[in-house]
Amino acid sequence: MSLHGPYDNENIFAKILRGDMPCVKVYEDDIALAFMDVFPQADGHTLVIPKNVTARNFLEMPTEKLGPYMERVQKVAKAVERALGPDGIVLTQFNGEPAGQTVFHLHFHIIPRRRGHSVGTHASGTMADMAELEAIATEIRAEL
Amino acid sequence: MSLHGPYDNENIFAKILRGDMPCVKVYEDDIALAFMDVFPQADGHTLVIPKNVTARNFLEMPTEKLGPYMERVQKVAKAVERALGPDGIVLTQFNGEPAGQTVFHLHFHIIPRRRGHSVGTHASGTMADMAELEAIATEIRAEL
Repeated sequence: MSLHGPYDNENIFAKILRGDMPCVKVYEDDIALAFMDVFPQADGHTLVIPKNVTARNFLEMPTEKLGPYMERVQKVAKAVERALGPDGIVLTQFNGEPAGQTVFHLHFHIIPRRRGHSVGTHASGTMADMAELEAIATEIRAEL
Repeated sequence: MSLHGPYDNENIFAKILRGDMPCVKVYEDDIALAFMDVFPQADGHTLVIPKNVTARNFLEMPTEKLGPYMERVQKVAKAVERALGPDGIVLTQFNGEPAGQTVFHLHFHIIPRRRGHSVGTHASGTMADMAELEAIATEIRAEL
């Protein structure tokens, strides 16, 4: 899939938003949902997605909804920082499959970085241990 | 430098904002300034920085200023897309030196991707040809 095309209601994040797929939830309000990436590139890798939109990517996000959504991205990033105390945090957001996008519902990646630790490959296929994700999510939730 | 510390008024982007350093400008209003990255990871690599803030990174951006700033990031990303027609666009934003941050004034990278083209290293030290940057900037400005 390229940069443009119809929104697919059967994408994984749409299913998570409908409750048809589970997720390890970190935060939810009427604007956004945050949960742990099941293919983490580093410990604490968290995703934040907007609710009530059919935006495949950042370019398609209705401008009037962008600010409130980004405030949630910041809110969760700050909680990740407080909870895990990383040396740095990378934000990434991929638009289009040639850019690395694998799920076509807008999402920002929040990836904690630690000195001397390299970051794993995006969507590598190595699924995280759910108990470990839940333990990290509990720490982040405590800061929200 | 780590995730936290004082804002340095002598950072390169502060100098650009004051007009003490040149840049290949793409867009400017009262909220944000966009210009070409002089160490592009791909053709069309553009940076968007907020004005009138001393935020070293995304975490430090005053929440009430985040939305208007992100609207400018989106505006410029859409113009990059229209102007250059890439197959994808990557947004990245680095918080802290261990995360890859090299200039400590908040900035989002807009990096066009093309199928079959890999992306270069961040802040690689290979400075772009200024005439080439100006030619690309002219194309992007025409879409703004």
